[in-house]
Amino acid sequence: MAAVFEATVTAPVNIAVIKYWGKRDSTLILPTNSSLSVTLSQDHLRTRTTIRASPTFDRDRLWLNGAEEDVSASKRLVNAITTARRLRAEVEKQQTDAVPLSQWPVHVSSENNFPTAAGLASSASGYAALVSALAALFELPQSASELSRVARVGSGSACRSMFGGFVAWQAGVAADGSDSLAVQVADHTHWPELQALILVVSDRKKTVSSTAGMQTTVETSALFPERVRAVVPGRMEAMQKAIAERDFATFAALTMQDSNQFHAVCLDTYPPISYMNDTSRSIAALVHAFNAAVGRTAAAYTYDAGPNAVIYALESDMRDLVELFAYCFPRAEDTAPDAFYPNPLGLFESPASVGRQVSAPKVAELAHAAGRSPAGCVRRIIHTSVGDGPRVLPASQSLLDAAGLPRAASE
Amino acid sequence: MAAVFEATVTAPVNIAVIKYWGKRDSTLILPTNSSLSVTLSQDHLRTRTTIRASPTFDRDRLWLNGAEEDVSASKRLVNAITTARRLRAEVEKQQTDAVPLSQWPVHVSSENNFPTAAGLASSASGYAALVSALAALFELPQSASELSRVARVGSGSACRSMFGGFVAWQAGVAADGSDSLAVQVADHTHWPELQALILVVSDRKKTVSSTAGMQTTVETSALFPERVRAVVPGRMEAMQKAIAERDFATFAALTMQDSNQFHAVCLDTYPPISYMNDTSRSIAALVHAFNAAVGRTAAAYTYDAGPNAVIYALESDMRDLVELFAYCFPRAEDTAPDAFYPNPLGLFESPASVGRQVSAPKVAELAHAAGRSPAGCVRRIIHTSVGDGPRVLPASQSLLDAAGLPRAASE
Repeated sequence: MAAVFEATVTAPVNIAVIKYWGKRDSTLILPTNSSLSVTLSQDHLRTRTTIRASPTFDRDRLWLNGAEEDVSASKRLVNAITTARRLRAEVEKQQTDAVPLSQWPVHVSSENNFPTAAGLASSASGYAALVSALAALFELPQSASELSRVARVGSGSACRSMFGGFVAWQAGVAADGSDSLAVQVADHTHWPELQALILVVSDRKKTVSSTAGMQTTVETSALFPERVRAVVPGRMEAMQKAIAERDFATFAALTMQDSNQFHAVCLDTYPPISYMNDTSRSIAALVHAFNAAVGRTAAAYTYDAGPNAVIYALESDMRDLVELFAYCFPRAEDTAPDAFYPNPLGLFESPASVGRQVSAPKVAELAHAAGRSPAGCVRRIIHTSVGDGPRVLPASQSLLDAAGLPRAASE
Repeated sequence: MAAVFEATVTAPVNIAVIKYWGKRDSTLILPTNSSLSVTLSQDHLRTRTTIRASPTFDRDRLWLNGAEEDVSASKRLVNAITTARRLRAEVEKQQTDAVPLSQWPVHVSSENNFPTAAGLASSASGYAALVSALAALFELPQSASELSRVARVGSGSACRSMFGGFVAWQAGVAADGSDSLAVQVADHTHWPELQALILVVSDRKKTVSSTAGMQTTVETSALFPERVRAVVPGRMEAMQKAIAERDFATFAALTMQDSNQFHAVCLDTYPPISYMNDTSRSIAALVHAFNAAVGRTAAAYTYDAGPNAVIYALESDMRDLVELFAYCFPRAEDTAPDAFYPNPLGLFESPASVGRQVSAPKVAELAHAAGRSPAGCVRRIIHTSVGDGPRVLPASQSLLDAAGLPRAASE
């Protein structure tokens, strides 16, 4: 039988602590300011993508979570694939015996292991997985930073998912975007005590897409230019220093301040944009109250273009925090305990025991003072750690069958 | 019987369209930026205050809504009374036959005709009434602008309630506050079509006091200085021009943008301050949707340090707006129709008919698309117009009895 030319990879989600909001070039996706993120573990949240090239395919095809999408409809997708093919063509020019993969149509199957219901932006891990799979299939010589430029044109924040650990997306100044790329600030082994909770918040209203929202901010917010000019550069430096020194209190304060400022410029946009709802705000207030109760900045919140909260804290504080959130934002009757909090790190006897009590006296006092929101305001608590960058998987993990069509979803 | 030396006045509420937020001097109450407000009609919302001076009183005493308060406990109150006495002493120096009122203790009785439940700041109308009553009692020669400085040291925004119509509070530059005072931009007859709705919003959480909140903003918001330096001065000019030209679209856009920016710098404060809740935000979104539906900027929202919305619109659009809000934010079962919307201007057949239907097809379409919030999210709709400044009332309206003690509350 003929050789199969394919690659399967997984890529991680990243959550910014210095926020990307605003483009200076919408086609090349060049940002108005640099940003910095933490890559979350692929053991819990990931996109898996298989890409196969074959002369027998009649056109490029893509399946997301098993459902076919129209490739040509997504200019960004076409851009990413075309750019990778151009890089492959250079390889083929060097090595005359190289298989002419750049000439062949591709089939792409991509799956997220987190439900869309989780309200997590999948475009970052999705494009990072696509570009990583293309690079593996095409055996591209480019570095991860160079490849991050290709991911960037698919989805800006995807460039940061090309690395594990702590990642800076340098805004750059070049008009062609050549210097707007991701670099690793520290890898995922640098600060093993740092963990994250994602509180998935119920919301009735539709939110403005970040692509549309950020450009309205650039066009209408009177305060936005000051954030870009005077605030972010200093925070980028201070944040890198805090990470280098594993200074959680500074990392946390900067993270909360930058999240708040991102939502502040959204509100200063006209018409205003609001992504956080009353539950989001209650969670933020509870984090400040927790820090006051324990007498140190022990937890930080950050919010992207939606109501979900991401909480960063050190491993040693996580049990108190999960108990506090599970008490103040109780599980809905119709949610199974292991869907609400799967207990991935075995913090508790069992998922069913989560939210039954708040152990630490100070935290219990706070929990009772804060009171409980109606059940179901928080739909699930995803507990995870800092993780590594895209991984190439063995052929056995392929999402395509012999005919090059998606297998039945395996996750 | 001996002559009675007393004065009774009413003073209005004012709602800022360019917001006051931040002090450069907390004792003199000198603001970081100028602000501009609209005075609302005393026919609907007012503070009534009677002040009497008598050599038979043994000390200064104050009753608010019938309950006695400890005068000496309020430095601001003492400041205002002391300043007025100093001005009276000058009068007595000129006219040797003047009654030595500046030497005598005073009794003050003050009543708001709006329930605290309405969540309206009463300090502005309260201090404007106090200072106006003192000025009337002491027959002070000072102009309303000069007297606004006295009201200002009681409560900053009170200086704007010393005038009717459209009022600017000039921040000033002098360290002694001599040039930080209110001036009338236009009187209440200038733009008779302009009206206001106050949507009283239910809220569970306590809000940060504006006195504490605004100083935290001054100390911690990275964006606040830019608002003060680069944004407000231009908006003050543009707003005065819009008022002079009765240009509602410009007036409305500036009003919404400045309210949003005030709440944006509150969110950029650390820890963040949020006064608007999900209902407040739904109302703002509905106003933008209404403007889109009618194809012009026909309504404007503004929010102060709480969740209540104040809507400015022209008389000709008020019926549509009341129908829209009453439909989308239905009256709670336990609220009487005339408590929800008293129908003060006879827009409807009766209070009971409010919210039954949305007449205008475009607005009805919007109302159904927007959907209805749970009953009771908006507790009452106060409909009012632009009004005049403090009024001196006849002795028959006194709130004090012969003994100088409060009469049974008359409203």
